Amino acid sequence: MSILGDLTVPIIQAPMAGGPSTPALAAAVSEAGGLGFLGAGYLTVQKLTEDIAATRALTGKPFGVNLFVGGGTPADPAAVEAFADRLAVESARSGVALGTPRFDDDAFDAKVDALAADPVPVVSFTFGLPSSGAAQRLRAAGSELWMTVTSPDEARQAAALEPDALIVQGVEAGGHRGVFVDDEHASDLTLLSALQLIRAAVDVPLIAAGGLGSGAAVGAALVAGASAAQVGTAYLRAQEAGTSEAQRAATAEPTPTVLTRAFSGRLARGITNRWHRTHAADAPRAYPEVHYMTSPLRAHARKTGDADAINLWAGQAHQLAEALPAAEITRRLAADARAAIAAAAERL
Amino acid sequence: MSILGDLTVPIIQAPMAGGPSTPALAAAVSEAGGLGFLGAGYLTVQKLTEDIAATRALTGKPFGVNLFVGGGTPADPAAVEAFADRLAVESARSGVALGTPRFDDDAFDAKVDALAADPVPVVSFTFGLPSSGAAQRLRAAGSELWMTVTSPDEARQAAALEPDALIVQGVEAGGHRGVFVDDEHASDLTLLSALQLIRAAVDVPLIAAGGLGSGAAVGAALVAGASAAQVGTAYLRAQEAGTSEAQRAATAEPTPTVLTRAFSGRLARGITNRWHRTHAADAPRAYPEVHYMTSPLRAHARKTGDADAINLWAGQAHQLAEALPAAEITRRLAADARAAIAAAAERL
Repeated sequence: MSILGDLTVPIIQAPMAGGPSTPALAAAVSEAGGLGFLGAGYLTVQKLTEDIAATRALTGKPFGVNLFVGGGTPADPAAVEAFADRLAVESARSGVALGTPRFDDDAFDAKVDALAADPVPVVSFTFGLPSSGAAQRLRAAGSELWMTVTSPDEARQAAALEPDALIVQGVEAGGHRGVFVDDEHASDLTLLSALQLIRAAVDVPLIAAGGLGSGAAVGAALVAGASAAQVGTAYLRAQEAGTSEAQRAATAEPTPTVLTRAFSGRLARGITNRWHRTHAADAPRAYPEVHYMTSPLRAHARKTGDADAINLWAGQAHQLAEALPAAEITRRLAADARAAIAAAAERL
Repeated sequence: MSILGDLTVPIIQAPMAGGPSTPALAAAVSEAGGLGFLGAGYLTVQKLTEDIAATRALTGKPFGVNLFVGGGTPADPAAVEAFADRLAVESARSGVALGTPRFDDDAFDAKVDALAADPVPVVSFTFGLPSSGAAQRLRAAGSELWMTVTSPDEARQAAALEPDALIVQGVEAGGHRGVFVDDEHASDLTLLSALQLIRAAVDVPLIAAGGLGSGAAVGAALVAGASAAQVGTAYLRAQEAGTSEAQRAATAEPTPTVLTRAFSGRLARGITNRWHRTHAADAPRAYPEVHYMTSPLRAHARKTGDADAINLWAGQAHQLAEALPAAEITRRLAADARAAIAAAAERL
């Protein structure tokens, strides 16, 4: 049986790199019958290994690890420099120096090495596709491979690697868009549109991601053809999440979200705030250079509770997120999805 | 019983002003158990009255009429003039002179007068809300009132007028966005996100609109809390639709859609083409001034089959639209929705 087929609850906890994802969150979701995920993005290999061990200590159930796929090209240093000048006002405001911009691939190969040597049940990929060599190594080690896509074109490319599932991310999703190339040609498909078009394009199990903040929406995604729903924002206020207090509070408010490059140099959806409004127009396509540059200021803002200088990643339905144990969130989403489907079947 | 409650098929044909909507299309959908709509936008009162009579001659079932709510303010003439200069190249290319830009409210009051004097079962509104006086007159005449909204804020404003239903339009929808104010603060909520947030905000029956190109997606919308689905693009290639041949052909292709002001001065979603790529960056917020200016060129392009100069309004899932009689499209969408819901209920 596949991991998807074995789930007692069709809920995948989205990996939320940069803080919210924790071993405790992943383990709680897996224990509740869903599938928890660790976000390997921004972690050192050492920290990833520790987080995997910590998750295993909390649950004997399967869980997954998400990898960021590098492979872009370094940004124009002059564009990064110009944005650094714009951000000087933020340094002055907070008294924290900008980080040094640098280009890297998030130690992708080293993380694949670690996962091939000590495999987890599922490895998922975001921002692109692994090489066929990396895919083969992880599969040979016993991992299922799931790949994040946002369009039929990306789905066809991913399908050539024979993935066990495709995670279909709609434009309403919180955090970084999973687009393979972050430019003006990137897909703006919403989840329902992407599910329809990708379902027509490839024959691979689909997992729906983006804006699924309620059981009714999870049920909708399952009816639209997904085998399961990947839910991130709904767990942002979970007790086990590593979300900062300021972000927890902002997540509960009805403030709209926006797509912005102002925090990381890559398009991501977050709750609108001063930093976005001040800097989005000037932010270059420069990932992860801008991420590294703003990182110390964002860490400081999380510590001091300044929501106006935090990357408040969140999907469009964020205000529905509840402050509950992750197991309870998982069970409610699944029960409400079942009830919504049953009610619609009854009405028809 | 309400109109929604009486439908044997939970499918509303979206009004598609500017050509695709015809009495034959509206009548065919109503005859199939759904609800057909006439788009009153851009029509004279005389033509609207004729279209209503023509629809009545084809069906004894209920149908609806959609009104554009004016109420914006005239654009800066200098901005319109500057865009006219940009469009000179299109006049030169086609040999057709630009139309005269003008501001109007689409004869809203006169259309309300006509509908109050000779009512139809449903009147829906787009781009804003009717005055409470106009709403009262139409309701007193016996019409149900449905209002198009794109966000919880708009839904709360609409709910104050006690509508019989709210049409929740997601950003994936084809054609003009229904936003009350077409500016940078307008909602970018996708259909699933909007349904969740509006369901939590108001207690009014909801109709889902935007990107619903398959029965599975219609089923998803019903599970997400909608009482019915409003479907436009799925009928663009219907035999009874007034869609031009060039647009029918373009609709069947997998070309992406974009939001653009290049054709009308108001943000609308259409299939990307040369006109959009050339002029979108310069197009001002100036509706309906730009609509009138480009109208003769677009009419010419429809006649000559030049898809690169037509406003190819379409939702994101347009390539799924089938060339079939409207009754067959209606029945398939409903049957596939039922099947998708039953399959999901079975799996859980």
